[in-house]
Amino acid sequence: MTKKFAIGIDLGGTHVRVAIVSRDGDVVKKIKEPTSEEILDSIFRSVSSLFSDEVAGIGLGIAGLIDREGSNVLISPNIPSIKGLDLVSEVKGRFRVPVFIENDANVAAFGENWVGAGKEFSSFFLFTLGTGIGGGIIQDKELLNVAAEVGHMTINANGNKCHCGNSGCLESYASANAILLKVVAALEEGRESMLTEICSGNFYKITPEDIYRAALDGDIFSREILKDAGKYLGIGVANVINLMSPDAIIFTGGLTGAWDIYIQEAIKEASKRAFKELFDKVKIVPSLLRDDAGIIGSAGLVFHSESFEALSQ
Amino acid sequence: MTKKFAIGIDLGGTHVRVAIVSRDGDVVKKIKEPTSEEILDSIFRSVSSLFSDEVAGIGLGIAGLIDREGSNVLISPNIPSIKGLDLVSEVKGRFRVPVFIENDANVAAFGENWVGAGKEFSSFFLFTLGTGIGGGIIQDKELLNVAAEVGHMTINANGNKCHCGNSGCLESYASANAILLKVVAALEEGRESMLTEICSGNFYKITPEDIYRAALDGDIFSREILKDAGKYLGIGVANVINLMSPDAIIFTGGLTGAWDIYIQEAIKEASKRAFKELFDKVKIVPSLLRDDAGIIGSAGLVFHSESFEALSQ
Repeated sequence: MTKKFAIGIDLGGTHVRVAIVSRDGDVVKKIKEPTSEEILDSIFRSVSSLFSDEVAGIGLGIAGLIDREGSNVLISPNIPSIKGLDLVSEVKGRFRVPVFIENDANVAAFGENWVGAGKEFSSFFLFTLGTGIGGGIIQDKELLNVAAEVGHMTINANGNKCHCGNSGCLESYASANAILLKVVAALEEGRESMLTEICSGNFYKITPEDIYRAALDGDIFSREILKDAGKYLGIGVANVINLMSPDAIIFTGGLTGAWDIYIQEAIKEASKRAFKELFDKVKIVPSLLRDDAGIIGSAGLVFHSESFEALSQ
Repeated sequence: MTKKFAIGIDLGGTHVRVAIVSRDGDVVKKIKEPTSEEILDSIFRSVSSLFSDEVAGIGLGIAGLIDREGSNVLISPNIPSIKGLDLVSEVKGRFRVPVFIENDANVAAFGENWVGAGKEFSSFFLFTLGTGIGGGIIQDKELLNVAAEVGHMTINANGNKCHCGNSGCLESYASANAILLKVVAALEEGRESMLTEICSGNFYKITPEDIYRAALDGDIFSREILKDAGKYLGIGVANVINLMSPDAIIFTGGLTGAWDIYIQEAIKEASKRAFKELFDKVKIVPSLLRDDAGIIGSAGLVFHSESFEALSQ
């Protein structure tokens, strides 16, 4: 008999999300806990609490580079303790069901393609806009098995040093981290802004939401910072349009909350830079599954692999 | 009975190449003539001279943006007279065989994948390095139906104005055109170089080959110029590696003649910028089919479509 569910895991730098997902892509139950140093323990513990005989398999979405054969994490800057672990074997050994692994932005794209904002498009590029910037590519309704590390695309030849070792990376201009670093540096130099009051002088407490709200309340500095980051994001978007000519661009992640300033500026900049013929046909939309794209997408890997096996039998 | 040949056309800014190609990808006969203003006439004339009952179809590779349905040229900066022409219908109407159209760099990638340097790779990115810079992407042995306009990827946010309307495009730093513009500007400002003697003072006669030869003969300026262009090319290569994580990068086009300086510098720069884990596994190789990649690839579209139809029957 066909088992009804799959477990999807979205392992990011700060949190592990785990969910039980139905064959229709509905989240039946989900849990979220902080990422601990003992990464395997926290995966085992959270999966155990949701596991049952009705689980067909487990999908893992990991913030990091996954090898092409989809079995190993090559690097994961935000979860260093994961390196060298044979996650697939470990999880398979413990739960005795098929286990799949993919990059977290790739599974989010997979989820949006399956039951989200990407359903109606044959091809799209997903940008995950959070602490860092990630990407996932859907082509002819299938996830492309590529790194899609759009956050580490150089958009400024002699630009800012990035933590990846490169310089001028999109991520070092347009991510939440880049925005916060810039804000703190400017405020420390005495730049005037409502933010100083909002954070009671502790600049490190400022969040992207604070900046967006201050911008909406008329804070010129906050507005400038968001527009500037959006402009750089627009360069990345234009590059993706000229390269992949997708039917759609989908944005997900915390920074999409600042849509009316940050994303709008990105769209404006991309419209100036991309080929008009390609820009005119691309739809630019927000994610539908939001924070659940990763858990839904990674569970989806399990069902997708089943249908693939059925086809080849 | 199966017809033995296909005709492949490679329509660039300066020349039309037309060839009769066998089912094994061998060029049986080819002709090359300057692109004239009457683009249809020159296609009709050259195809007629090669056409026979043994021709299964005609493939067109065009320097320009082709729409996704593969039937129309959206823009072609170097062949402006092509705009608005329904090339596929016109050629089909005249020769009564199936006709296919693709971007010229895409068909070159298709050719290299079929019988060239890409045969052994499951995925690769082809750079065409000439007057401009183009791209073609093979993924899982198939040509990706995307624009792949890598020459118009911004690599310098506030960089040189590009003829496409954008600024900071890879093409405006690393193409033959960019190199020649820079050389002429520097020589006009009195920069010392062997090139002044080589061109007898007429800077506009200088070719990329002259620059490469002067560099090999010890001309410091020529060496600098080629290395600088190569460095920018390396940024584009690193971006492609981080995005598409291909098995190989294949370089084709006139500038590959300057491999030991220009391409070597690109490889060095890319090695510094791309994720080490992805760079270490990518092979960087020259084209095998060279100038024939376009005619072979466009003829290949005909045979490929036949096998596709056979499969779906």
